Amino acid sequence: MGSDRGEDPPGKISEREIIKEIFLKNTPPSPAFEIGPGDDSAVLRRIRGKPVVTTDMLIQDVHFDLSYFPPDHLGEKSILVNLSDIAAMGARPLAAFVALGLPKSVEAPFVRAFARGLKRVLRRYGVALGGGDTVRAEKCVISVTLLGVVGKTPVTRKGAKVGDHIYISGIPGLSHLGMSLLQRGAGRGRGGSRAERMAVSRHLRPRVDIDLGCFLGDRGLANAMIDTSDGIFVDLGHVLEYTGAGATIDLSEVPVPEGVKTLCLRLGHPWEDAALFGGEDYHLLFTVSPEREKALEKWPGKNKLYRIGRIERRKGIHVKKRGGEVKLTRRARPFFEHFAAKGNQDH
Amino acid sequence: MGSDRGEDPPGKISEREIIKEIFLKNTPPSPAFEIGPGDDSAVLRRIRGKPVVTTDMLIQDVHFDLSYFPPDHLGEKSILVNLSDIAAMGARPLAAFVALGLPKSVEAPFVRAFARGLKRVLRRYGVALGGGDTVRAEKCVISVTLLGVVGKTPVTRKGAKVGDHIYISGIPGLSHLGMSLLQRGAGRGRGGSRAERMAVSRHLRPRVDIDLGCFLGDRGLANAMIDTSDGIFVDLGHVLEYTGAGATIDLSEVPVPEGVKTLCLRLGHPWEDAALFGGEDYHLLFTVSPEREKALEKWPGKNKLYRIGRIERRKGIHVKKRGGEVKLTRRARPFFEHFAAKGNQDH
Repeated sequence: MGSDRGEDPPGKISEREIIKEIFLKNTPPSPAFEIGPGDDSAVLRRIRGKPVVTTDMLIQDVHFDLSYFPPDHLGEKSILVNLSDIAAMGARPLAAFVALGLPKSVEAPFVRAFARGLKRVLRRYGVALGGGDTVRAEKCVISVTLLGVVGKTPVTRKGAKVGDHIYISGIPGLSHLGMSLLQRGAGRGRGGSRAERMAVSRHLRPRVDIDLGCFLGDRGLANAMIDTSDGIFVDLGHVLEYTGAGATIDLSEVPVPEGVKTLCLRLGHPWEDAALFGGEDYHLLFTVSPEREKALEKWPGKNKLYRIGRIERRKGIHVKKRGGEVKLTRRARPFFEHFAAKGNQDH
Repeated sequence: MGSDRGEDPPGKISEREIIKEIFLKNTPPSPAFEIGPGDDSAVLRRIRGKPVVTTDMLIQDVHFDLSYFPPDHLGEKSILVNLSDIAAMGARPLAAFVALGLPKSVEAPFVRAFARGLKRVLRRYGVALGGGDTVRAEKCVISVTLLGVVGKTPVTRKGAKVGDHIYISGIPGLSHLGMSLLQRGAGRGRGGSRAERMAVSRHLRPRVDIDLGCFLGDRGLANAMIDTSDGIFVDLGHVLEYTGAGATIDLSEVPVPEGVKTLCLRLGHPWEDAALFGGEDYHLLFTVSPEREKALEKWPGKNKLYRIGRIERRKGIHVKKRGGEVKLTRRARPFFEHFAAKGNQDH
């Protein structure tokens, strides 16, 4: 419980108290709702625009390991993975619904910390908690559904065109490196290099760029967009599925700071693999027509947008490095399959 | 797999095939969606009215037992329990989102049968499948979120008034009796009494009365409404929480046919307990002002609406039988706690 200050006494917690902690405490009435948590269903006020819905299920020991994942960050992340899917449509989030399965052995401080993280992230992104369900389970299961709204045209995975430039909204691979550090028991304190702290923070508390998604969507700048939940290589693959085209990634353009390369070396991952195959970064990956590219300069956010490649007629994903082409060898396979085995999928 | 005809060969099933079976096969494009399953989020067309949302999580060996619960009926029931929460608001269902955790050992026929049940019930109620998530889990976990719409004023649990009559939309206790039969290995074939078949069917495939909910909601007839997921006693208790009032139930008015009483006797349950404490029937329980009661005669549905009691100033739930009052003894406790232990809760 790294980030939890342990101000709560340990002890079992009843069903009724769990419901109170998760759904009722620190859940101020939201103007989004006509009827909030507590009835058979929640009722929202009329919305302007089109409803956008996504749902993601996180399972203990498949998607997270409680031995190093602090419960408050788990509460945050269960919302963040869904926020990322809303952002990738160019939509804004509105309301969250949380179904939670908890083992009988769960103690009050765990539930309180989880609820604290949940409310923290909802507040940060201006999302209302609409209710949900709490049940008993053998292991922790969290299923969050997020309802958002999009004004005009949503951005889908489908619209990439040959000639488009491929962009990413942040450093790829950090989340996977953070997980590796946490699994080795490192990275939880304040020590470590800047790259280590960045990596751990990206794994536990990824930032989701709702404003960037809306900026790109509202201006019609992105032809296709996806969030990098499965890593650049796999997620770009999803975008290409709809095009019949391929892509080239230029590794020299992929933003990997020297400190991160050093960290990769220490952890025994080639940095190229971490950058291409590391998942759970929740950046936005999008394609833009060259003639519209100049408008990206108007992006007022702090984070840089990195042009890392191009959609091409030649099929497959090709990786360029210092002029030559890198063969994606089986070396990358175990890395890739680690993620594939997790089975996390968006539909 | 009682109801499954076993036309599929046994065998493991890949993640990709699971996704295809659940989200893509027999999922015709729905006019409700601008973007259906397959992207980061689903996007619905603009809706007239207010969005209504509910979510319910079902967990293997907590909410269902695969040794007697056929997978196609499980697919149906995972939707039905949510439809019931939409009905209880006087709303209409629009779209379902399904998050599904499945063990590695799951075989293709199970997934196909589950998907078949899911699509069958969605078709029956005119609900579109908007997507979801599939992950690996140690045991089967199903979390469904249903999005509906309500035109004018939703019916809540809150509006019951002293003097209101209490109504129920069907025979209570059947689902619990059905579960008892199934647990004893009975009731799966075509044999058994009519009451047995009714009980098993109510447990595996409860009918949900969307039209009745809308009839009562649109006409403003029900002051308060809830679905009987936890049984008359507990669910009426939820309605009373908001009133500061109490209620009397007249057992002689509670619709329990002789055949069902005989079945109770055989199973060792006093019929009064089954009727008051048996959960998962998913009837509608609602209160109506006596002066508006006549309008109920216009209900065009086939099912009768039963007046079973009255909201009163005196606190608590009192049970009348042949003129006298029944003391609710500890006899009913184990029955009640069986359901409470399940921890199924709506918020």
